Amino acid sequence: MSEAAQTLEGWYALHDFRTINWTAWKQADVSLRNSALDELHTLFKEWKDVEDAGTGSTAFYSIVGQKADFVFMHLRDTLEELNALEVAFNKTTFAQFTIPAHSYVSVVELSNYMAQPGTDPLQNPEIIARLKPILPKWNHICFYPMNKRREGNDNWYMLSMDERRAMMRSHGMIGRQYAGKVKQIITGSVGFDNWEWGVTLFAEDALQFKKLVYEMRFDEVSARFGDFGEFFVGNLLDGGKFAAMLQ
Amino acid sequence: MSEAAQTLEGWYALHDFRTINWTAWKQADVSLRNSALDELHTLFKEWKDVEDAGTGSTAFYSIVGQKADFVFMHLRDTLEELNALEVAFNKTTFAQFTIPAHSYVSVVELSNYMAQPGTDPLQNPEIIARLKPILPKWNHICFYPMNKRREGNDNWYMLSMDERRAMMRSHGMIGRQYAGKVKQIITGSVGFDNWEWGVTLFAEDALQFKKLVYEMRFDEVSARFGDFGEFFVGNLLDGGKFAAMLQ
Amino acid sequence: MSEAAQTLEGWYALHDFRTINWTAWKQADVSLRNSALDELHTLFKEWKDVEDAGTGSTAFYSIVGQKADFVFMHLRDTLEELNALEVAFNKTTFAQFTIPAHSYVSVVELSNYMAQPGTDPLQNPEIIARLKPILPKWNHICFYPMNKRREGNDNWYMLSMDERRAMMRSHGMIGRQYAGKVKQIITGSVGFDNWEWGVTLFAEDALQFKKLVYEMRFDEVSARFGDFGEFFVGNLLDGGKFAAMLQ
Amino acid sequence: MSEAAQTLEGWYALHDFRTINWTAWKQADVSLRNSALDELHTLFKEWKDVEDAGTGSTAFYSIVGQKADFVFMHLRDTLEELNALEVAFNKTTFAQFTIPAHSYVSVVELSNYMAQPGTDPLQNPEIIARLKPILPKWNHICFYPMNKRREGNDNWYMLSMDERRAMMRSHGMIGRQYAGKVKQIITGSVGFDNWEWGVTLFAEDALQFKKLVYEMRFDEVSARFGDFGEFFVGNLLDGGKFAAMLQ
Amino acid sequence: MSEAAQTLEGWYALHDFRTINWTAWKQADVSLRNSALDELHTLFKEWKDVEDAGTGSTAFYSIVGQKADFVFMHLRDTLEELNALEVAFNKTTFAQFTIPAHSYVSVVELSNYMAQPGTDPLQNPEIIARLKPILPKWNHICFYPMNKRREGNDNWYMLSMDERRAMMRSHGMIGRQYAGKVKQIITGSVGFDNWEWGVTLFAEDALQFKKLVYEMRFDEVSARFGDFGEFFVGNLLDGGKFAAMLQ
Repeated sequence: MSEAAQTLEGWYALHDFRTINWTAWKQADVSLRNSALDELHTLFKEWKDVEDAGTGSTAFYSIVGQKADFVFMHLRDTLEELNALEVAFNKTTFAQFTIPAHSYVSVVELSNYMAQPGTDPLQNPEIIARLKPILPKWNHICFYPMNKRREGNDNWYMLSMDERRAMMRSHGMIGRQYAGKVKQIITGSVGFDNWEWGVTLFAEDALQFKKLVYEMRFDEVSARFGDFGEFFVGNLLDGGKFAAMLQ
Repeated sequence: MSEAAQTLEGWYALHDFRTINWTAWKQADVSLRNSALDELHTLFKEWKDVEDAGTGSTAFYSIVGQKADFVFMHLRDTLEELNALEVAFNKTTFAQFTIPAHSYVSVVELSNYMAQPGTDPLQNPEIIARLKPILPKWNHICFYPMNKRREGNDNWYMLSMDERRAMMRSHGMIGRQYAGKVKQIITGSVGFDNWEWGVTLFAEDALQFKKLVYEMRFDEVSARFGDFGEFFVGNLLDGGKFAAMLQ
Repeated sequence: MSEAAQTLEGWYALHDFRTINWTAWKQADVSLRNSALDELHTLFKEWKDVEDAGTGSTAFYSIVGQKADFVFMHLRDTLEELNALEVAFNKTTFAQFTIPAHSYVSVVELSNYMAQPGTDPLQNPEIIARLKPILPKWNHICFYPMNKRREGNDNWYMLSMDERRAMMRSHGMIGRQYAGKVKQIITGSVGFDNWEWGVTLFAEDALQFKKLVYEMRFDEVSARFGDFGEFFVGNLLDGGKFAAMLQ
Repeated sequence: MSEAAQTLEGWYALHDFRTINWTAWKQADVSLRNSALDELHTLFKEWKDVEDAGTGSTAFYSIVGQKADFVFMHLRDTLEELNALEVAFNKTTFAQFTIPAHSYVSVVELSNYMAQPGTDPLQNPEIIARLKPILPKWNHICFYPMNKRREGNDNWYMLSMDERRAMMRSHGMIGRQYAGKVKQIITGSVGFDNWEWGVTLFAEDALQFKKLVYEMRFDEVSARFGDFGEFFVGNLLDGGKFAAMLQ
Repeated sequence: MSEAAQTLEGWYALHDFRTINWTAWKQADVSLRNSALDELHTLFKEWKDVEDAGTGSTAFYSIVGQKADFVFMHLRDTLEELNALEVAFNKTTFAQFTIPAHSYVSVVELSNYMAQPGTDPLQNPEIIARLKPILPKWNHICFYPMNKRREGNDNWYMLSMDERRAMMRSHGMIGRQYAGKVKQIITGSVGFDNWEWGVTLFAEDALQFKKLVYEMRFDEVSARFGDFGEFFVGNLLDGGKFAAMLQ
């Protein structure tokens, strides 16, 4: 049996992608639309308060193309809180004008392939901040799920810990070159959703997503062992932009 | 021809995942909603009576994310009883506000890779209790289906009984480390549904699902021979929580 | 070029899986529901007359889980007759309360891997009875489609006739152990539907489906060369049970 | 680089599969239904005139099973004409009672693996007739798309022209044995639709589809290099049969 | 680690495929339809102005077959502009009569496998023109997405830069033979959508799509390393043709 890497987990994550039923929205009364937006802003305010209190974080982005119109990415301490967020949104008036498009359940994860022996990572404030991150408000988001491949000679889970550690180190090097340009949040979803990990990237310049993911694809970890799901890309929304979009 | 492991079977299982049509529910009259909930509670009461009588068991959990809003996991003696449970639910008023999301048909199974020769397992009360288990009321549920792989050199069904037994033993060791943290129910679905097995896990702490499944993935049985379907994760519901959710 | 096994064909088969729109059915007038059921019983009577006349056969089972609510399995002499059965059902009032769920088109087939040279199978009444079988009214049905695999070294169609015959003989041995417990009807669908064969099993005890299919999976024909589609399992319906279900 | 076989192209093809919304059709006024059928017959007449003028051809068949209720197979000189046929149908009253089920865009193709060097095939009236064929009015149709496989050692496109020619010759031999029983039209769809070719077969006896496709599957071209999509099978319709079906 | 090819990026691209709800359109009032078309023409005019100003480009084609009825291919400087185009269309009256069918998000890309060392491509007006191309108004469009394969021995991303460069050169040679017949725009979608690249072809004669893609398939880059998604093919639309189609 091969040794599993130890992992540290932080906040649970729910990526909640929704499509707008534009026809229904346009046909709704102005007063209904206004009260729907008011109610939504109250929700946004609550989420902001949670973020300010350091007990969670929420990002809100439009999605380009037909896969969805927008995404909420929620981070919270428990699955129960994430579930409550879903239900609260589903009960809003605005939810009547949306259609579920996609979702992903995971938990913020740090794998300690790089861990320094003899230290307790949970005493490290930097580690804690990475496990319970306040999501950046950068211009763009990119989300995709991934697996480590288990096919014939390309079976990640049959490699030794040393082989995996060496490859992950090289992989991490690429990521480090994008420091300041791309912020990356890895969430683990083994046992929670259909893929093993979710990757959420933030950038001011969307081209950096392409450059980072493309460069990594030539790295052995991705080239031989990475299987990727659907990619979603989007633009930062805030209450004002959202209201303008829905006008 | 390779020798099949003998299996013992207990109760049949139906995992019945449903999504709530929130718009229709919100637009329904309060009196209709109340009578729908009353009718549902009567059903819950009947299921509880069956469980108390030891002739079946039912678990009821919300599902996090858009795959479904809740799941009923029913255990009963026959496929006819499971079918009758589906029909009875479909005839309720509440069912009009739900949309089928996913289902799985299987039967509680113990494989006797570990069987002690010369003993009759069906005389063993512990075995009987595992074949007809009362489902725990722990905080969280995790469900996923799986196959044993048959691809090129990774063909489980071409291995000898001894090879399979050795690997299953190592696999079982990992499970045992999670005793008290994760309760696991294996159901066989060869001939009943699209995958060969269903795995249902219960835990008070959802992180244990991730830790168990991730650790097992490095075990040769999973690393080389496991193919996995969709994962569903959820939170315990009871009548009160459900009513609150639907308020 | 490898030599194809000769096959004998009998009746064409249509598996017609349907889901009930329970909400619409519940909301329909009692008089409409009664006339829908009367009309349906007339159809059932016609099918029974065809079966009594030996010019076809029909099985009617509920399906457990959400894949469908029931299935008609029709056997008839021609594709035109099967098409007419579909159209006739679609024109009934009851059909308005159903949604197509799945279908499969095939023809009853005997492969003569086991044929005795120098005999004319079509002079053999037992063979004729197997090509135009009256479907049993046993408690349970199981249906799944399958292919023989053509992948790398596991390519059934590149094997010699002798290799295939030897493997099919071993396969047939397992089937024979289930004589009296499981009745198996093989239908060929090359050129008719998406898989190469359909397998329809009948049993009084549904567990026998699992035992048979699981045991066969260790046989080289299945282990190396079998690819399987969706599995459907169900319970015998008759007019009375169906009416009770729809009450 | 391996040498591509030269191909000759004739008429463009659109296979247009549709499902009937039976509930809506049954609920429509008799007068609306009659005018819908009249309008449809006008369309059929136009298509017949095109066929009589030798500038195109159309086949019209019902489809057995739930994949579709009927198919129009149109052959025309240009993609613009095929598009116009779609739009014209979509504007009919009858189209309101149908749901798009599947379609396929391709062009009649002859590959000249068998070409005789030194001759100009486009001076050969027999070749011209095969490139712009009047579709037969035989009892049955079978349609499926296919690719030549590119997997590991089974990569058609890495073979030499001589290897491919030898295999295609053997393949053609099988086809020739079915002359008079099965008429085969190969259409190329590289660059037009999701598979590389479409295969449309016509036969008076549908069993010949199964026998031909099954026998070919043992041929190396299919056994090692053929990947197949969905199969559709149907029965000849004409205006009278169609009207009866819709009564 | 293998070295990634450097790439240059220009305008972002959105392929926006839509299906027309013909029944709703036919049932709409003439006045509503006219105002819908007027509004649409205003949009077309805006897009034309952008194109004339050199700050973007839009192509508008019908799609043959049921995958979609038409496609807008938009090129703009930012993802925000593409998103705004989507939203603007969704707010039109005509959008109420359409259903999203498919979309693709990417960015015009030149890979510099062929780059001449020591030159700055961004000082080259020809390169700039290829990065921000005015889309041709040729008769036909063809769109498909693709990946470079990573399977066993056919793993593009494990090849050396030299191996990849040599194969890409041979590939480019084929493309050059079609100069004047097929105009090709490659867009990169790593990090933006589900495949690694989109390929959009334009031609006056649609057969050239088939000839180009088929010939390339025998080239090692495609034969061993190309994985292809859905293909869409269509005919040039302009305001006049579109109005006629919708009459």
